[in-house]
Amino acid sequence: MEHEILESLKQTSDIKKLNIDRLNALCSELRDEILCKVSETGGHLASNLGAVELTVALHYVFDSPDEPIIWDVGHQCYSHKILTGRDITGIRTENGLSGFPKSSESEHDLFVAGHASTSISAALGIAEAKKIAGSDNSVVAVVGDGACSGGMIFEAMNNAGRSQTNLVVVLNDNEMSISPNVGAMAKYLAKIRSKEGYFRFKDNLEHTLLKIPFIGKGIYSVLRSAKTFFKDMFYSSNTFEHFGFTYLGPADGHDIDMLIRTLRRAKSIKKPVLVHVNTVKGKGYEPSEKMPSKFHGVAPFYRESGELKKESTDSFSSAFGNIICKLAEKDDKICAITAAMTDGTGLRDFSEKYPERFFDVGIAEEHAMTFAAGLAAGGMKPIFAVYSTFLQRAYDQVLHDASIEPKHVVIGIDRAGIVGGDGETHQGTFDIPILTSIPGTVIYCPSDYNELENDLLKAFSADGVQIVRYPRDKERDIPKKFVKEYGDFDYFEGNPECLVITYGRLFAEAAFAAEETDASVLKIGKVFPIEHELIEIARKYKNVYFFEESVEFGSIAEHFGNMLSKAGFDGKYEIHCVSGFVPHMSVENAMKIHGLDRNSIKNAVKEALK
Amino acid sequence: MEHEILESLKQTSDIKKLNIDRLNALCSELRDEILCKVSETGGHLASNLGAVELTVALHYVFDSPDEPIIWDVGHQCYSHKILTGRDITGIRTENGLSGFPKSSESEHDLFVAGHASTSISAALGIAEAKKIAGSDNSVVAVVGDGACSGGMIFEAMNNAGRSQTNLVVVLNDNEMSISPNVGAMAKYLAKIRSKEGYFRFKDNLEHTLLKIPFIGKGIYSVLRSAKTFFKDMFYSSNTFEHFGFTYLGPADGHDIDMLIRTLRRAKSIKKPVLVHVNTVKGKGYEPSEKMPSKFHGVAPFYRESGELKKESTDSFSSAFGNIICKLAEKDDKICAITAAMTDGTGLRDFSEKYPERFFDVGIAEEHAMTFAAGLAAGGMKPIFAVYSTFLQRAYDQVLHDASIEPKHVVIGIDRAGIVGGDGETHQGTFDIPILTSIPGTVIYCPSDYNELENDLLKAFSADGVQIVRYPRDKERDIPKKFVKEYGDFDYFEGNPECLVITYGRLFAEAAFAAEETDASVLKIGKVFPIEHELIEIARKYKNVYFFEESVEFGSIAEHFGNMLSKAGFDGKYEIHCVSGFVPHMSVENAMKIHGLDRNSIKNAVKEALK
Repeated sequence: MEHEILESLKQTSDIKKLNIDRLNALCSELRDEILCKVSETGGHLASNLGAVELTVALHYVFDSPDEPIIWDVGHQCYSHKILTGRDITGIRTENGLSGFPKSSESEHDLFVAGHASTSISAALGIAEAKKIAGSDNSVVAVVGDGACSGGMIFEAMNNAGRSQTNLVVVLNDNEMSISPNVGAMAKYLAKIRSKEGYFRFKDNLEHTLLKIPFIGKGIYSVLRSAKTFFKDMFYSSNTFEHFGFTYLGPADGHDIDMLIRTLRRAKSIKKPVLVHVNTVKGKGYEPSEKMPSKFHGVAPFYRESGELKKESTDSFSSAFGNIICKLAEKDDKICAITAAMTDGTGLRDFSEKYPERFFDVGIAEEHAMTFAAGLAAGGMKPIFAVYSTFLQRAYDQVLHDASIEPKHVVIGIDRAGIVGGDGETHQGTFDIPILTSIPGTVIYCPSDYNELENDLLKAFSADGVQIVRYPRDKERDIPKKFVKEYGDFDYFEGNPECLVITYGRLFAEAAFAAEETDASVLKIGKVFPIEHELIEIARKYKNVYFFEESVEFGSIAEHFGNMLSKAGFDGKYEIHCVSGFVPHMSVENAMKIHGLDRNSIKNAVKEALK
Repeated sequence: MEHEILESLKQTSDIKKLNIDRLNALCSELRDEILCKVSETGGHLASNLGAVELTVALHYVFDSPDEPIIWDVGHQCYSHKILTGRDITGIRTENGLSGFPKSSESEHDLFVAGHASTSISAALGIAEAKKIAGSDNSVVAVVGDGACSGGMIFEAMNNAGRSQTNLVVVLNDNEMSISPNVGAMAKYLAKIRSKEGYFRFKDNLEHTLLKIPFIGKGIYSVLRSAKTFFKDMFYSSNTFEHFGFTYLGPADGHDIDMLIRTLRRAKSIKKPVLVHVNTVKGKGYEPSEKMPSKFHGVAPFYRESGELKKESTDSFSSAFGNIICKLAEKDDKICAITAAMTDGTGLRDFSEKYPERFFDVGIAEEHAMTFAAGLAAGGMKPIFAVYSTFLQRAYDQVLHDASIEPKHVVIGIDRAGIVGGDGETHQGTFDIPILTSIPGTVIYCPSDYNELENDLLKAFSADGVQIVRYPRDKERDIPKKFVKEYGDFDYFEGNPECLVITYGRLFAEAAFAAEETDASVLKIGKVFPIEHELIEIARKYKNVYFFEESVEFGSIAEHFGNMLSKAGFDGKYEIHCVSGFVPHMSVENAMKIHGLDRNSIKNAVKEALK
């Protein structure tokens, strides 16, 4: 397909010169470009296809970057990237763009995204800053209905609704977040979504009733203070209006003309406005319209058929899902909780087999954690399956609700360690420091599926907060001589001069490195609290190297080092950790750069043994 | 006053035998008991006085502990403690009860509280557990309108509203949290609160309109589908109903009879119900009715006059408030943000002098942090003043929204370190580990007001996330020879064998200990990142002792220890930190128990120099 209009745009504001037909043609070109590039590299397809017209209309009506557009999560920002002059070829790979808004890429990306439900808070802050500076430029937040289950959206709307700030919130409602939406808000949105004439109708009714010169006695008696009454009754009947927003919509999110008219109205109001837009996730590409969940975040696929280029179900996530099903069969107290990640965390089977013990609470990690603690207080054995990066949201709940008075909650942490293409906003390199700060936590890091099962069994048999964490990966091969016995640790004695300590998937890297160098290896499975037995083993060596997929401050390696010092160790102790925020690139490459792959380990050991 | 009825109650359920008059008399006795005891020890007075009738009615209608009552925050649980057989004499002191619900005290306290907005999540978890176990007992959550600005409430209601679970949420609406409430939700509640007949009225209107045999043409045309229309229009006009709750109220929260009838109705519904109860904060004691904010959390006072026994405004919080006002006078980009703690954080003056640059966002720490990052993205210089324990809620926002793409946000952390009477749920002993895990943070810990000002100046002059943390305390005297120069650290050379390192208020303790023992003292002001200069000083000593009001894992002491090891230090290094969760007791006593007071420091040094 020719991209004639796209190529003709010299700057973003050139969009404003196009007529409706040309704008529609531009949308087709954008869809083609997105499909072409995402089918090659993978990426967030369905949400991007659904937001094409909306993005074009936003840039038509608002003057980015003076009127900034803040994208919630960022799963829908590819059209925005293209329209602001960026090439999405190779997006999410090391040499391509980030899959999320990133201010270092463009002045049109004023605020980072990646985690859900932050956009209104950020946009309100920017809008208040503009107000203080005397500008009445609009600030736009675009938020999907999926992100609306997150408490921050409510906190921000509660705050915004009483301000007189020039904030436009666009609710991009496709009845989905990653999976179909759950929760009362989703049900409510579905209700108002289906009533296109609803709010116009309200105007008419009031108008008509108030015009009537004579009204019956019965009505009269209840309508005495009709004006106030109707004002309260009708104009307050929408939850967004209760929150002080002017509500506009619902508007058809694929009708450019209607979108432009609605957004212009919103821009003119100069107070908090909510524009409700109905979109179809995956719009314009049949496979993704039919299976929006599959095409939410998708691997490379054949554009013609929609089939994945490499189909694989072998992962820690799916192993986790199978094990939890097996355990739940034997123990009817086991419940599973997810925050809108049924598929991502491998819980699809569990949700179908044990619906009464399965809880998808929506994107709401704080609630999920305290809810789990509540289930435990009620006598159940809950497991909250969550990505490492999203558990950051629930730090206080793990501490306050599950640990001060210990509740037996198991946390299954997926995407622990380096994550790959999602980049900085999604790295699982912080959970170790925050969880080890909480008194009483127990943390297991299996390096294969058998160990994962063992660890989950231990976690369900113990008390208090028990954590089992595993990477976004499949289990790795290890050299044959490294046979694990699945205790709390495995110790492989080699050269008495040099010990490599590690856990999780890095064990495979360490094992290969040790095979070549004959270094000793201490693989820990139960990584926290650190048992004194481990210290006793380590202190016998002159050179101890700890390799860990975590930031250093607060890492197991750091805790281990201090315990070693206390035990009188006076050899050389080296920590190899992840430093800083890791940008998007392949996991293997990130491991190399941070010195955590087998070659780096080998070189470190060789250096020590020189 | 005689407590005849209270003394006659052998078990909680005996309340059920009393008639309305006796219940009212019981309420008077409870108020008297609370006033008598809290005026002696201090505590949360006003919220407790407001919830007396509600508590009595709850225990009258529900069968605790089989039908558990989960108190949000716990500022209103004193009557509950008394009615469940506990003596509140000396509450919040070392030998008395906790000021918050605590399951180790009573089977009637099923879930911990202290932080706001958790009750519905916990109660829903317990209710789902009961449902799975086949019980249809109710679970009650009591939540104040203040806590309703917290996102967890929304997340939990969103989740609960679609369940068919037997959950009763009592909204204790006194138009206050700690200060008068802000935000759209508060405004909305005030609106429905003022309309006692509102929801009964809705019933009448529908009934009347539908009965009319003849209606005019104008009405007819709009009322064609009257039934559906009215169902949508009237029964959905309340936000709680939009969320799938049956709404009952508003009920007078000081009318025992009405409360009992409403709660009975709620108990009979067996699905999620919201009971809206209007109460008066401070009810029944004139000084606290007039000044509910002052009597929210109050020091010991004279019952007759309401005057505090010791009036003191000397604190880090008020020094902080003064300094921020001074800085804001010179720099009109400085904005201040609080999450419902205008008085607690010392920002009252600022809020009055610079209303356009002051933002009280309600109890909503997550939003507060991202909103601050938004202000920074818009060119302002925001400071978010927050208690250490509540910042735990915003870990992900500090990391994701303010640090990945660094925003110049200053965080003023109040109540850092040990807090005293509030106990486990409020200790400021975790912020160091979590904040040092985030790449790029800079942390200052002043030990007096001058240093606080210096540190704030530095923080506002730098970039990225800058943190200044200080205790719930006033500045402490130090021996005269320890004259600080307010650099990033101060080094007091004494005995070359032994170095004490510390920061914040512990510096005073260390200085007194050093005066007697002649130990060297390294006082760090900029505690993170740790400068190599400090390591160079420390490595010259044979004995290094680090004293810190933080949990150990992730502490500055731990980071320091690892840097020392890396630098080849081979002396003795000892970390003295806080261990575990610190229960309610005086700060001085907690410091003693955890080995952080001047005597403990002295003894450690003496031991080393033997």
